[in-house]
Formats: sequence, structure tokens, C-alpha cells
Amino acid sequence: MLNFTFCNPVKIVFGKETIAELETLIPIEKYVMMVYGGGSIKKNGVYEQVKKALKHHDMVEFGGIEPNPLYETCMKAVEICRRDKIDFILAVGGGSVLDASKFIAASVDFDGEDPWEILVKGAEITSAIPIGSVMTLPATGSEMNSNSVISRKSTTEKFHFSSPLVYPQFSILDPETTYSLPERQTANGIVDAFVHVMEQYMTFDVNAPLQDRQAEAILLTLIEEAPKVKANPNDYNARANIMWCAAEALNGVISSGVPQDWATHMLGHELTAVYGLDHAQTLACVLPSLLRNRKNAKLGKLVQMGRRVFGINENDNEKGAEKTIGSIEDFFHSVGMKTKLSDYNIASGDAANKILERLSKRNAIYGEHEDITPDISAEIIKNC
Amino acid sequence: MLNFTFCNPVKIVFGKETIAELETLIPIEKYVMMVYGGGSIKKNGVYEQVKKALKHHDMVEFGGIEPNPLYETCMKAVEICRRDKIDFILAVGGGSVLDASKFIAASVDFDGEDPWEILVKGAEITSAIPIGSVMTLPATGSEMNSNSVISRKSTTEKFHFSSPLVYPQFSILDPETTYSLPERQTANGIVDAFVHVMEQYMTFDVNAPLQDRQAEAILLTLIEEAPKVKANPNDYNARANIMWCAAEALNGVISSGVPQDWATHMLGHELTAVYGLDHAQTLACVLPSLLRNRKNAKLGKLVQMGRRVFGINENDNEKGAEKTIGSIEDFFHSVGMKTKLSDYNIASGDAANKILERLSKRNAIYGEHEDITPDISAEIIKNC
Repeated sequence: MLNFTFCNPVKIVFGKETIAELETLIPIEKYVMMVYGGGSIKKNGVYEQVKKALKHHDMVEFGGIEPNPLYETCMKAVEICRRDKIDFILAVGGGSVLDASKFIAASVDFDGEDPWEILVKGAEITSAIPIGSVMTLPATGSEMNSNSVISRKSTTEKFHFSSPLVYPQFSILDPETTYSLPERQTANGIVDAFVHVMEQYMTFDVNAPLQDRQAEAILLTLIEEAPKVKANPNDYNARANIMWCAAEALNGVISSGVPQDWATHMLGHELTAVYGLDHAQTLACVLPSLLRNRKNAKLGKLVQMGRRVFGINENDNEKGAEKTIGSIEDFFHSVGMKTKLSDYNIASGDAANKILERLSKRNAIYGEHEDITPDISAEIIKNC
Repeated sequence: MLNFTFCNPVKIVFGKETIAELETLIPIEKYVMMVYGGGSIKKNGVYEQVKKALKHHDMVEFGGIEPNPLYETCMKAVEICRRDKIDFILAVGGGSVLDASKFIAASVDFDGEDPWEILVKGAEITSAIPIGSVMTLPATGSEMNSNSVISRKSTTEKFHFSSPLVYPQFSILDPETTYSLPERQTANGIVDAFVHVMEQYMTFDVNAPLQDRQAEAILLTLIEEAPKVKANPNDYNARANIMWCAAEALNGVISSGVPQDWATHMLGHELTAVYGLDHAQTLACVLPSLLRNRKNAKLGKLVQMGRRVFGINENDNEKGAEKTIGSIEDFFHSVGMKTKLSDYNIASGDAANKILERLSKRNAIYGEHEDITPDISAEIIKNC
């Protein structure tokens, strides 16, 4: 096992009718900005529940955070926070709303010239407005970590930052808020959580069997629960299990003491930046191609995953690994997720060329062995 | 899944040569009390490492915390803390040292008449001195939770308390500090962690498959790693894996959203109070007897555990459950742990009578269904 430091201070409030707890979770003296997205929370009753719980709090609203949240939009909220001296941000929605809230919270008192530096240069943050969340889309794990991914429209760039200062103080996870998710969003969330686990698990063995099994626990549960929500979107336990899986997939537990990959995410961000695909759609296209390309380096784990997660018993390791990758594709298909760029009418050769150019400029090197050069990345994209 | 709240703010610093990080983990302006036990840390080099890391800090030492730490001993430390205005407690040792440190930290500014009320009456704590730990005995999980168990010599009582105020701010876990543990202590630790998992897992199904698998992940890893440390006490990875298992066994993750039992612990505490057995020795005697007594109520989970943890495939559920219990006993024996009171020259009938009297006085009811009356407890003890 590798040395590690682990700390995750987020308070999770999980279950039915928990949004009402906002009343006591946010100190009454706080001036709250409620940040949300395109308005789905006004259709599924979440907006009313939040307003009711916070009826005695001072609050302003900031709606309109887009999927793949934009720097440009966030900066409008930052302006309001600065002007009105907002001192608590409540994110209500999915990972995009929460990521945006983290960036807003970190930007308000940012000491440099432009908060964009936090993303593009990793500029240091020394303070942030406290954040809480009502998470309504299990996917990114943003409800229980300190990460944020922000895009910039003017430059078609997508970058992430991370700071212990932007851990939500609390996240409310009420599985009933996810009943009304469109099928595409549910599928996106399941695939996103699945690939988060893969980035931390599908690397090389460092003798960390507990972390391996904890990762497999999430994969097995996602595979088991996904068809249940497809069959019945109002299956409380299936929704609850997927919601808890998504939070646990990226809260630092399964990455403790093990190497991590994240190349699939890096290439996925490129595809979203260039073609506007949903984040999870990019992951489902990149992952199988990446696993085939890196099959030798990941052989042991691919075989282990096949055996433990998919029940594949194959004497030939090469064949076992290939069957594992095929089973992952089958799982993605089963939730309604496509796995080829051509399914989105994108010519993978063109995509490879475009992304090669972008990555070469930054000399971007990815993977747990830091051996995925821009050329290899382009090859992976070409085979998506 | 049941509703739950989860929050665990402990910072874990895990790995080789991490004790040196104490220098920056404890603010330099703090006046530190270093609390430790019988002096094993002076033999295994841990004492020197701590002193070296804190050579610029003001520090007093308080040694002599006993296994099953005594209220009487703790109160001597409380007096010193009050007199000298200690404002940081560093626990260096195993669970007993850490439990004592939590009680000391909570007692110094206790508002009532006698801090014993915290234990016996659950009196409220409103402040506590900050605590950090260097954990050298993977067992209790005290390094990553807010629990403490304290005994009182004068009344032969053993009680626990819990408060978010006594979470360690950090815990340093260096697996190399456990190389020199006597075999008995290593075995105690493995059994303790194993039974912690059982208390949170071996109940009834509430449709929480992730928590089940996370629990099984710890059980499987303990079973896999235990023979390795027996064969080679200096096996770094085996020591590391057991150490991380012990912390994860009782940090609140696997108990989130599921029912819990804890009857084995409650009866074990009685046996320790009356006969002075090691905590883990009592658990290894009580658990199999309790599982046989409660076999019907726990049948589904016993069968599941048999299948997933021990690879038992038995069509008859009753037989499957019995084989699971037998496999648990075999595992305890394999680490050198006895499972019968008679192995300690204790007549189980006498023990049952004594404990029946004690439990009846308190009308103590245990178990996940709150159906283990003093009579049933006595029956369980009788069959230990």
C-alpha cells in the first residue's frame, strides 16, 4: 500500500424528507445564495421544499447554471455575492450546480487578478464562502468531495480545481428527489460513478486488497441496481443505493493508498469541450478504447475485475481481460449508453486529430504510469 | 436503506515514517500532554520518534494508562491538565490510550459534579481539549471515531460514551509501529476489528447492498491478511492492510443506513468487568454463542456471509448458517484465539448467573431487534 492522507469532513444527511433539515443546517444569521440550474427543481418539488425549510433565512436565488458549468455564468454570481455580501452558498441540483457553487465560493474573495487563474494555473485559494448542498443527481460525487470542473465558453476549455476549502459543510441526499430524473440523466449518473471507480481501481496492484474490494463493492452494486431503476424509476431502495454509490465513488476512500489513472476523464473533458457531448457519454466512449490500448499494463486488474465483478472464469488472461472490457460495454449499453463516437455522428479520426493538436500544445501526459502521450491519447480517441 | 447522518472529520496520516509529521500537525503554540500506556512505546522506538518530532513543542508526559483504561487513572491526568492548562492531548498507543485520552479531554472542562456522569448518565459535553493520536495497535477503531470505553475499578463497571467533540483531529497510522506487537495483541486486534464489522453487518436485510459488500470487504481482507502477519510479523503490507481494516471497521461508513446489533460487545464488557478477560477474548467467546442463539433472526445474513466470505454453498439455509458460525470459530482459532469460557477456566454457568444478576438490575435489553432480555443474555453466556 502507498502512503496516504485521508480527510473528508462533509456531513451527509441521507434519506427521505431530509430537505427540511436545512432549517437547522444553515445558521440563521447567514445570508444565503441558492444556486440552481435550468429549473428542474421547480418541477419536482425540491424548490418548494428548500424555500419552505429556509423561510426564516435571508436568501437570494441564482438560477441558470448550465450542464458543464461556465466560468462566464459563475462570474455573474460572484459579482452578486461580492455586492450583497453573501456568506453562505446553497447548491441545489446536480454536480454542475455544485461545481459551479464551489468555484463561486472560491472566487468571491480571490486575491489574484482573475479567478480563472484558479482553474488554469492552479492559483492558491486562501478562503471560500461556506457551501452546503441538496444533491438531486447522483453522478459526480461532488456532494462529498472538494473537486470542481468548470468550462470557459470563450476559449472552449474545461479545467478542474480542488481545495479543502470547498468541501460542502453538508450535503442532503434524498433519493426521492431523483425519481423524476430523465432516463438519460439517470444513465449518465450511473456511468459517471462507475467510471470514477474505474479511475481509482483499474490501475496496477500495490497490495491494497481492502481498497480493491471497496471499489468492487460499488461496481457490483451499480450493476445490480441499474436495471431496477430502469424498470421502476420510483424504486426507493434502488435510487438510494445508486445515490450512496455515487457519493462513495469519489469521496477519497477507495483512492487512499493506491495509484490512480484519470486518463479517461481527461480525454472525456476534451471531447466535451470540442463536441459538447455529455460528460458520461464521453466516458463511455473513451473507457473501453483506453482499456484495450492499455491492456498489458492493466492486465492483472482486468482479470481480477472480470472474475470478481462479472463472474468471468477464463484461464487465458488476455481473453479474460477482453471479456471484462466487453462486459463493461454491455453494462453501459444496458443502461442505454452508447460507447462509440460514431453513435454521435462524430468521425473518430477527425476527433483524434483535433485532440492531438490540443494535447500536444499542452504536452499533456496522462495515466497511472504517466506514459499516455498525446500520440497515444489520439490513438485511443481514434478507436473510440 | 434507513435514513442516516454521516460525518467523520478525522484526518488519517497513513504509512511509513509518518510520525515525523507531528511537528506540523500540532500547532506550535499548544501545550501538549502525551498520554501513553505501559511503556511498550519506549521499546519499539515510537517514543523517540514522537519526542524528536515534537522537540520544539512544550509537552508533559502521562504514562501508565492500563488496558481497559480506568476512570481513576484518567482523573489523575485531568487534574494535571486543569492545573497546567494543557490544551492538546496526544494519545500514543492503542485503543485504551486513545479512549482514555478522549475521556480526559472531555473531563477537563466538564460542567457537572463528576466526569463519571459522562459515562454512567450520558451527561452532555459542551467542550473538549483537541486530541491527536499515534495509533500503534490496530483494533478498536478509536483512531477514527468518537467513542470511548472506560472502566471504574471501585465499582467494577465498564461504560462507553460518544461525542463528536472527541474525534481525534488527526491519527497517524504507521504500520511499522505494529511489527513488535506480541502475538496475543495482534490476534486481539484482528478479532476486535472482525467483531466490529459483525455488529454492523450481521443483523437483518434493509436493502443496503453497498454497505453489506463494504463490510464483507473488511472481513475478507482480515481473513486473508491474518495468516500473513502470523507467518511474518514484519510483513509491511499485511500489517498495513490490517491497520486500515481496523480503522474502516468502526468509522461510521459500514453502519450508515443499516441496523446494528452490539449485543456481543455489551456481553463482552460484562465478562471483562467480572473476570478481567481481554476485550477481544470476550468477543470471541460471545459471538459464536450469540449467533447460534439468534440464528433464526440472522439467518439471511448468516447464509449470505457464508456464501460471500467463506465460499460456503449449502442448499439448506440452517446448515449454511451453522457452517458460517463454524467458519468464524475456525478463523478465530487460526489466529490463536480461544472461543470458550472454559478455555479460560471460567465455568459458563457461574458466569451466566453473575451476569444475569448484573443485567437484571439494569434491565439491560440488547440486539438489533431489542429482544435480547437479561434471560436470553444469560443463556448466551451459558453456551459460551
